Amino acid sequence: MNAAILTIGDEILWGTTVDTNSAWLSQNLSNLGIAVRQIISVGDEKKEIIKALDSLVGHFDFIFITGGLGPTNDDITKNTLNEYFKGTLKRFPEIEKQLKYYFEKRGVALLLRNESLAYLPDNCLPIPNSKGTAWGMWFQKDASQIISMPGVPTEMKSMMLESLIPQLKKQFSLPVICHLHAHTASIGESLLAEKLQGFEAQLPKNIKLAYLPHLGTVTLRLSIKGTVQNEVLRQLQEEKIKLEQAIGKHIFGYEETTFESAIGTILKEQNISIATAESCTGGFIAHRITSVAGSSDYYKGSIVAYSNAIKIKELQVSASSIESEGAVSEAVVAQMLNGVISKFETQMGIAVSGIAGPGGGTSEKPVGTVWIAVGNNSNQKIRKIHLPGNRLQVIKLTSIVALEMLRKLLLKL
Amino acid sequence: MNAAILTIGDEILWGTTVDTNSAWLSQNLSNLGIAVRQIISVGDEKKEIIKALDSLVGHFDFIFITGGLGPTNDDITKNTLNEYFKGTLKRFPEIEKQLKYYFEKRGVALLLRNESLAYLPDNCLPIPNSKGTAWGMWFQKDASQIISMPGVPTEMKSMMLESLIPQLKKQFSLPVICHLHAHTASIGESLLAEKLQGFEAQLPKNIKLAYLPHLGTVTLRLSIKGTVQNEVLRQLQEEKIKLEQAIGKHIFGYEETTFESAIGTILKEQNISIATAESCTGGFIAHRITSVAGSSDYYKGSIVAYSNAIKIKELQVSASSIESEGAVSEAVVAQMLNGVISKFETQMGIAVSGIAGPGGGTSEKPVGTVWIAVGNNSNQKIRKIHLPGNRLQVIKLTSIVALEMLRKLLLKL
Repeated sequence: MNAAILTIGDEILWGTTVDTNSAWLSQNLSNLGIAVRQIISVGDEKKEIIKALDSLVGHFDFIFITGGLGPTNDDITKNTLNEYFKGTLKRFPEIEKQLKYYFEKRGVALLLRNESLAYLPDNCLPIPNSKGTAWGMWFQKDASQIISMPGVPTEMKSMMLESLIPQLKKQFSLPVICHLHAHTASIGESLLAEKLQGFEAQLPKNIKLAYLPHLGTVTLRLSIKGTVQNEVLRQLQEEKIKLEQAIGKHIFGYEETTFESAIGTILKEQNISIATAESCTGGFIAHRITSVAGSSDYYKGSIVAYSNAIKIKELQVSASSIESEGAVSEAVVAQMLNGVISKFETQMGIAVSGIAGPGGGTSEKPVGTVWIAVGNNSNQKIRKIHLPGNRLQVIKLTSIVALEMLRKLLLKL
Repeated sequence: MNAAILTIGDEILWGTTVDTNSAWLSQNLSNLGIAVRQIISVGDEKKEIIKALDSLVGHFDFIFITGGLGPTNDDITKNTLNEYFKGTLKRFPEIEKQLKYYFEKRGVALLLRNESLAYLPDNCLPIPNSKGTAWGMWFQKDASQIISMPGVPTEMKSMMLESLIPQLKKQFSLPVICHLHAHTASIGESLLAEKLQGFEAQLPKNIKLAYLPHLGTVTLRLSIKGTVQNEVLRQLQEEKIKLEQAIGKHIFGYEETTFESAIGTILKEQNISIATAESCTGGFIAHRITSVAGSSDYYKGSIVAYSNAIKIKELQVSASSIESEGAVSEAVVAQMLNGVISKFETQMGIAVSGIAGPGGGTSEKPVGTVWIAVGNNSNQKIRKIHLPGNRLQVIKLTSIVALEMLRKLLLKL
């Protein structure tokens, strides 16, 4: 089955709003086995909307429309669809009831303008909106299903998830599609692909593997298509085991797991407390760790040492090491690690010192040179890395390498 | 003059890539006085591309196409356009020269596959690509200008900025449109609008004011349309002065200025050094400050004190204050400020203590309660705020309020 998406709204054509609805819809429809073949965006103009409908209705199994359903004068989608499908606006009591409840709860009077929201074309199926006041509409014409939704992303998404997707699954014979998302860090896409050659070669035809690269991490997505839910889930489990056999130690988590929450879970399980000493990352590692709720259970704090004087005074780095080796050196980062562990009285720590740029680089230590130490005195890893990119990218990549070093140390990988 | 945008690429229809090119193009075309009336996205399929071209060519003054220009098999835009406009592929020596230079610089051999990039339809004007290997193409047909560009955003943008926009300005009589972007922080959109009532009422008809809200900041955009560059710039200066009279103290910067770079500039000018003591923000304020190149000139470091013991030991907060008032209190945050200033020997500081959630809230101090202190012993501001949103939003909003408090203190606003 195929589909087209029609997004309506001047703000998209002006470029003040990026159309993220289409990507979300495309992904979710493809998960239902419905392939999106075209996306059209037009402004809040009747003529343009009708022209777009003419090019879509009858040519696609499904047409998903977003935008233009609000109560203001520039919201013309409803009236245009009513005219196009030759309906008559009628009052829907269930919508009026929800509207009254919605406005009463907010202590606001129901304005005449909002009352019009209770009127929809008599030849459509109204779709409830649990996050707002404008209901959706479902029309049928020439073997096309035409579904109109609000443009506000939260309203559109909940309408899809709560009403439309369940209804589509019930009404049409759609394939079962399940995904597995495995997140890896600190290993490049091409090296991953090399390690996964054997795994990829043995994948059954109904399973696709995709590499989704982000800054410093790569997510592997396995998509399995079948007809029976249980069979698809069994296959997924089977391939997950094989995937772990191939590259298990690089996978820090699945699905909603973030890098920092994965590390938090390990620290909690092993009952290990940590602290951080940061130079070039300037607090960003601390920020990542503390962005996880409950991180105060294992995280004690950080010294952001942005000057040599502070490294010496607060982290007990020896002045002579800084003088002989430089602040960006193995000796200094090792002393920073010891210093922060003894200051915060934790079992382990992370220390980084580097050159984030754009200034400060030399031929010997160019911008992007970073020393990282993780662990403690008896169990420690120290590495020098060279990172590409601008200041912010060096900061972010450093945080990923440092946290991944700690993860591997903790898990003895 | 009007335009349509055609984006080509399976990844857009799959929803794995959000089409940000269209929004960028729309904004930049609207700045030239060219109104985008339709956006169409189709996959890498000849039939679909031709269908879209049929619906656009001859109906719009300009058709901007992105995507499908690379050297791999799924990049079919060039051959499709060549067929559509009935051209013949011919070798362009200037492209071949650039290709050779491009690959030599990278120490890579020029593959046969890449050599094909030197061939373009003979009836197009080739557009140089300074960021990649696939050149653009400019065709004319039925009073439409059809311009094809790569889909990689950096390549498309530099092609527009370096070649196409200057050429469009030269070749067509387009209006002069200039913008002023004024950034404000820590004041809501509606309060701003109230303060700007008089300003808005006096604006000449050729000037539009837009409110662009972000988390914790609002950007005001003045758009001036005219025919003579100097006249437009004069008007812009005039309105800028009036805008500053109305809300000057809320404007932290213009155009490319970020919040943290604005504060850095003030600290440098006033020759003031600072340090930060962070509890709930967990290093995020330090990260914002140090994301500015050269921040080590005024920023000395941070203590991220994620436990009461660290607040007492490192920041000289009194245990009895924590016991009687709680860690999230005026007394504690004031002591944190003093503690961090004396530790880092700076002239000023920022200290925050709050409840970022989702846990840790009480009826007296619900999630989102934050105490902030900025300045020093002789010149200090302390505030309690209540912030909405999830953990990450509370962290980000706190950083904005704290930095804005420091900015106003430094500028005596």
